[in-house]
Amino acid sequence: MLTFDEYQQRVIAAVRPLPPRSVAATDATGLLGLVTAEPLRSRVPLPGFTNSAMDGYAVLAADIRGAAADSPVSLPVTGDIPAGDTRSLRLEPGTCWRIMTGAPLPDGADAVVQVELTDGGTDTVAIREAVDAGCAIRHRGEDLEPGDEVLPAGTLLLPRHVPALLSAGVQEISVIPRPRVAIVSTGDELVEPGQQPGHGQVVDSNGPMLAALATECGFEVVAVRRVGDTGDEVREVLTELAAAADVIVTSGGVSAGAFEPLKLAFEGSGSFDFVKVAMQPGKPQGFGNLDGTAVFALPGNPVSSLVSFLVFVAPATRVLAGRDPQLATVGARVAEHWVSPPGRQQFARVIFDENGSVVRPIGGQGSHVLGGLAGSQALAIVPADTTEVAVGEALQVIPLEGLA
Amino acid sequence: MLTFDEYQQRVIAAVRPLPPRSVAATDATGLLGLVTAEPLRSRVPLPGFTNSAMDGYAVLAADIRGAAADSPVSLPVTGDIPAGDTRSLRLEPGTCWRIMTGAPLPDGADAVVQVELTDGGTDTVAIREAVDAGCAIRHRGEDLEPGDEVLPAGTLLLPRHVPALLSAGVQEISVIPRPRVAIVSTGDELVEPGQQPGHGQVVDSNGPMLAALATECGFEVVAVRRVGDTGDEVREVLTELAAAADVIVTSGGVSAGAFEPLKLAFEGSGSFDFVKVAMQPGKPQGFGNLDGTAVFALPGNPVSSLVSFLVFVAPATRVLAGRDPQLATVGARVAEHWVSPPGRQQFARVIFDENGSVVRPIGGQGSHVLGGLAGSQALAIVPADTTEVAVGEALQVIPLEGLA
Repeated sequence: MLTFDEYQQRVIAAVRPLPPRSVAATDATGLLGLVTAEPLRSRVPLPGFTNSAMDGYAVLAADIRGAAADSPVSLPVTGDIPAGDTRSLRLEPGTCWRIMTGAPLPDGADAVVQVELTDGGTDTVAIREAVDAGCAIRHRGEDLEPGDEVLPAGTLLLPRHVPALLSAGVQEISVIPRPRVAIVSTGDELVEPGQQPGHGQVVDSNGPMLAALATECGFEVVAVRRVGDTGDEVREVLTELAAAADVIVTSGGVSAGAFEPLKLAFEGSGSFDFVKVAMQPGKPQGFGNLDGTAVFALPGNPVSSLVSFLVFVAPATRVLAGRDPQLATVGARVAEHWVSPPGRQQFARVIFDENGSVVRPIGGQGSHVLGGLAGSQALAIVPADTTEVAVGEALQVIPLEGLA
Repeated sequence: MLTFDEYQQRVIAAVRPLPPRSVAATDATGLLGLVTAEPLRSRVPLPGFTNSAMDGYAVLAADIRGAAADSPVSLPVTGDIPAGDTRSLRLEPGTCWRIMTGAPLPDGADAVVQVELTDGGTDTVAIREAVDAGCAIRHRGEDLEPGDEVLPAGTLLLPRHVPALLSAGVQEISVIPRPRVAIVSTGDELVEPGQQPGHGQVVDSNGPMLAALATECGFEVVAVRRVGDTGDEVREVLTELAAAADVIVTSGGVSAGAFEPLKLAFEGSGSFDFVKVAMQPGKPQGFGNLDGTAVFALPGNPVSSLVSFLVFVAPATRVLAGRDPQLATVGARVAEHWVSPPGRQQFARVIFDENGSVVRPIGGQGSHVLGGLAGSQALAIVPADTTEVAVGEALQVIPLEGLA
């Protein structure tokens, strides 16, 4: 029997980030959740032209040196420069232009007087305060010069990176692609969701649940399949999927029964390990490699599948995506006692108390599998040497919302 | 000038959840992030048939009453019942069936003896321990009877709800639809991402950033558009988009300059409010209603746009989606002093220290707009009456990752 940490480290160590790929930088939404493979450097100066930081009047500072509230300086207004004005304009000494925030500064001007320091005139303006040269001006290249780094390598692209990404003037960006995940449920008893199960049959809900988890973790789901309980069928379908997926996740067929199709297909093949892990739930686990595709063979109980996905599949697949392996955990205090099996690291389904940092075990209608899974809000991590989880104890928990 | 809370409450109070819609229950991934509009009740009993909870032997408990390690009871094995066996089988008294976890119990059997308590025989099996009637059996309907509630109304659908959703035997489910959001950037200076801006022009990065934020918040982005600085163009495009969107978000054109197209289009129309809010950044805000579509007119600076989206657009749009308005916040301690303007609630861009619960203001290369936005990891909420944020102070922060 492996400890939880031993097995988690083993599956994480077995994978490497996917090779980077160059993609269009303009598809900002499509890039969300991807990791940059090299530093993004600006191709352009930013700002791209010297412009006004205020709504006001572009002037030569020397022209208004004596301006004051009791002795305003009047200047003729040559015209308006709105944002987006593409003309190349000049300021003649002794005149001014009315200018808007972000509009290009006319050549010859060296300051902007904000409108609040003037009478707002459109033919002639009275300026009531002197300003220094450089006032309210954003100079070309003052934020970034061409070649400056905009985002370091290894940046997980989020909405806040979009302005930098789109303003840098690059057409393509090198990123680690989104890992492609194929899901396979095993079991002769399974029917497709939406079908009426006959005697002895059940709806396959594990496959869609694992697909939903993979989607929420930011991976690309490329297939959701069901296979029967023969080793031949499992081998055939998994070999086919390995050509189109970076990760295959199966559920069922790894325990100790007489018909365990993952074991029938791969035990003794040299490319698979079937192990027992000192954890609850999720003790029987399989991990293999098919033509370079990582295969996670998870136990079939829905709770075991969900836990195994979050603590083994998600971390390893995040490594493929160039990310830190671990999902976020938060600290919480225990509000109600529960027990944990000796020698096994428990992932207990818990709900948050109102303040969000206190947890209690799920009970009541949560005692059956579907209700207990649907009603739980987090997995509390109980160390293997703990058998009684006491009120007030501090634990780390994995929230089941916001997995990206 | 409105306080931040006054304005936030005003926009939240102006919207109602969208009318529910009946959708296919089988598209589990498509349902993620939607809220159920009525309780989901099972149409079927669960389990759907009485089945074995273990790998072992289906027996009549009375037949093995005297079984013990030193006096095992031998029974002939009629055959195997794997999971997914759809036959209707019978147990004859004095015999047994080998049975797998999840397989249907044969009529006449009343217990399962787990394989570990036997010699595992396939023709005849020696059973070394007596069990009570009912042992290792899951009875039809013991989890749920038809009509039982599986998920309450108001459930935010997540991967953990998928098994309950798919197993309940329902074809359709009533949910609040995903709010449709249209994004509009205003400004004659804007060019499309990927185009080379000329003199006086800039790439529109606000539009794609707001689209990315809306996507990450779980909304459906139906349009990303740019309009010039005339009131007519703004009115025309927004009226068109109002027919296809539940929410329109514009950026730019709401401050005090001479050409503010949102104000030119709608000020004084009776359907729009343009207000000043005591916050930093984001002071000028507009909110209106066009044919029932909520319109948020945000300031055009990228940082102001992002903050305004998170504290006004996201909460109101979450209400449309049937969710609690507020994005998640976490508590954090301040590691480095900064200042906040008097009388304004500040949303300060901060980064987390290593342990994730300590924040410091973004500095260094973060001093310009793009770097400061890209590099920030959270917004720290500084109350309006605070002007000095002291080391060690406790603040709430809005993380900029995991907005769903």
